[in-house]
Amino acid sequence: MTTITLMTDFGIKDGNVGVMKGVIWNICPEAHIADLSHMIGPQSIREAALVLARSVPYFPAGTIHVVVVDPGVGTARRPMAARIGDSFCVCPDNGIITMWLDRALTEKKTVEFVQLENPKYRLPVVSHVFHGRDIFSPAAGHLAAGVPLPLFGRALADPVKIDLPKPIRLQQGLRGEVIHIDHFGNIASNIRVEDLGEALSNKGRITVRLGQTEIKGMVDAFGERPVGELVALLGSTGNLIVSMVNGSAAEKLGTKVGDALEAVYEF
Amino acid sequence: MTTITLMTDFGIKDGNVGVMKGVIWNICPEAHIADLSHMIGPQSIREAALVLARSVPYFPAGTIHVVVVDPGVGTARRPMAARIGDSFCVCPDNGIITMWLDRALTEKKTVEFVQLENPKYRLPVVSHVFHGRDIFSPAAGHLAAGVPLPLFGRALADPVKIDLPKPIRLQQGLRGEVIHIDHFGNIASNIRVEDLGEALSNKGRITVRLGQTEIKGMVDAFGERPVGELVALLGSTGNLIVSMVNGSAAEKLGTKVGDALEAVYEF
Amino acid sequence: MTTITLMTDFGIKDGNVGVMKGVIWNICPEAHIADLSHMIGPQSIREAALVLARSVPYFPAGTIHVVVVDPGVGTARRPMAARIGDSFCVCPDNGIITMWLDRALTEKKTVEFVQLENPKYRLPVVSHVFHGRDIFSPAAGHLAAGVPLPLFGRALADPVKIDLPKPIRLQQGLRGEVIHIDHFGNIASNIRVEDLGEALSNKGRITVRLGQTEIKGMVDAFGERPVGELVALLGSTGNLIVSMVNGSAAEKLGTKVGDALEAVYEF
Repeated sequence: MTTITLMTDFGIKDGNVGVMKGVIWNICPEAHIADLSHMIGPQSIREAALVLARSVPYFPAGTIHVVVVDPGVGTARRPMAARIGDSFCVCPDNGIITMWLDRALTEKKTVEFVQLENPKYRLPVVSHVFHGRDIFSPAAGHLAAGVPLPLFGRALADPVKIDLPKPIRLQQGLRGEVIHIDHFGNIASNIRVEDLGEALSNKGRITVRLGQTEIKGMVDAFGERPVGELVALLGSTGNLIVSMVNGSAAEKLGTKVGDALEAVYEF
Repeated sequence: MTTITLMTDFGIKDGNVGVMKGVIWNICPEAHIADLSHMIGPQSIREAALVLARSVPYFPAGTIHVVVVDPGVGTARRPMAARIGDSFCVCPDNGIITMWLDRALTEKKTVEFVQLENPKYRLPVVSHVFHGRDIFSPAAGHLAAGVPLPLFGRALADPVKIDLPKPIRLQQGLRGEVIHIDHFGNIASNIRVEDLGEALSNKGRITVRLGQTEIKGMVDAFGERPVGELVALLGSTGNLIVSMVNGSAAEKLGTKVGDALEAVYEF
Repeated sequence: MTTITLMTDFGIKDGNVGVMKGVIWNICPEAHIADLSHMIGPQSIREAALVLARSVPYFPAGTIHVVVVDPGVGTARRPMAARIGDSFCVCPDNGIITMWLDRALTEKKTVEFVQLENPKYRLPVVSHVFHGRDIFSPAAGHLAAGVPLPLFGRALADPVKIDLPKPIRLQQGLRGEVIHIDHFGNIASNIRVEDLGEALSNKGRITVRLGQTEIKGMVDAFGERPVGELVALLGSTGNLIVSMVNGSAAEKLGTKVGDALEAVYEF
């Protein structure tokens, strides 16, 4: 029973995601399919890369992640399939896998990339505008049905990677930036648990700055503070986040992706 | 083939619901998973309780309903699993089950509650902010895989219940309040078919008042009246609702949850 | 393993779609269920007809498509089940199948229609307002479980059809109209690849007019032109569309469904 996840920027009103499931089930009727998100910002490869990297560790070995955020659809960008550790990814070669791949390489996992070239594993007619249906879903279906990676096409040695902002070490602390704002208005930065390191042993002395706002001390959970208060804490995948207890921090502060965020503390 | 439903206030853009499915399928690969709603108002336990109670009767015996609307995540509130009649619920102990439980007890169904304490049935690392992934989904997966309720933790004798507004009997009729506004703008009240009782034998003589608006007579179906007309009728689960034929009554009337609504009739 | 798709105008917040899945799995626990769209415009039979017709070719033979866009719920309109070629449709008899049926008849496929009358294949209590739950989902479940079409009720000889606008042939080209605007703001017209015919052999000479805007020449794919440029091309199911590269053409142009759109070219 293979699990397949779908992530796109297609939205949920036009039926396109349903069609991708139809294509997959035509080829591999017993696949389980989970929607990861179809509300990725239009053409936002970076947002897709972030949601993908933090989601993949929670899926069964062998899961096939299909990601179609594809500003270059119909041009020369290569469609690809990847094996990263014990999972698979089917997507345009545009950097979507960057964060997942970086972590996998750090963890010494094996990786393998091929181009999706073999017409046998595409729909008979390939449009110029909907490769999610015509190339990526059929590839996912055939992978789920057991077709080995090399049969899809030539090896791809150099998958595209995107530049992701890294936090900068200050004299006292770190300067990072906002990389995601979630449904609740929680503000996630690129400052991670590893970056903060020892400083976390004294959370009360870390001050988080975002625009004109200073939050003194980090907490462990939303519920420690009264409703409406701004708090800084570690999110569920290890990023420093700013939240409002039972409210929207992003709305309150007018924060946008890309805004600077600092964590200041004495060594 | 166990069915699991998921209801949260997580929205659909951040991938968190997909991750919950990954966690469940890791433990119980053959579970069927249906989304009930992920657009519950943020932290709205009452809305979740309402949607849950009216949905559960339509699912197969043995279904496991996972509800994560959890303003107290990371604090002392207890995570729990419940057996209510022939179905299960996995959720924070914050009153989400109130309406379902009240009805089950009225119908003399057996119920059983345990705390989710056993680390064997959680993820190895439990965050302070995403118990949907770390505690509730693993519990649902293990329940679906056949782990008996008592193995999850100690019995929980006194699940939290929330106060739900009851309609008040007037000299002539009932005064209730608006408890839900749906996607179409239909306005649901807490006045139920049982409350109206005998009065329903003469629907034409029931007047419904909402703010400055009076609707004279109840109908059986939207389609009985012309497009754009306001009508009062019984909703599909037995609540008195106010609708606009092929339009949005809530938008037209500016109605909000909590507004008073009266059904007036002579005995 | 039967596949069932669901398309409604119910939205995603109230739990109604989840309930339909519960009803189906009660009857046919092994059915695969895919959401096609639940964001069809309220009561928009035409939009549902369009999304349905372009989606069905991609699903496995035997798929059952449940469509509940039902302004006449609770009135005399007939609930029906149809076999169209090798697939099935369960829906109110209100024209939703028009475009699918027209194409199937052109392709000489066999079709069969019955009314959903047999109380054995409905829920025991049928409400006046939620036939998606009480009539259509049970019918889909029983169809998936193998109940033959004639057991549901009498044959229905004359399913309702809706009028769909056809493009008009001009001295030089075609005048059509906008029939759909998708999540990205792409503008789809009713002018199809078959209508353009020979003219497509010289795409550069086709000019597309929409309001005050003229787009000279059609392209094959979004990615051929710079970001922000308006382009005209064939959509993935063969309709002439107007798009903005990595932007929203509909927002830029203020386009609405029903607006006129012309494709002008010399013969």
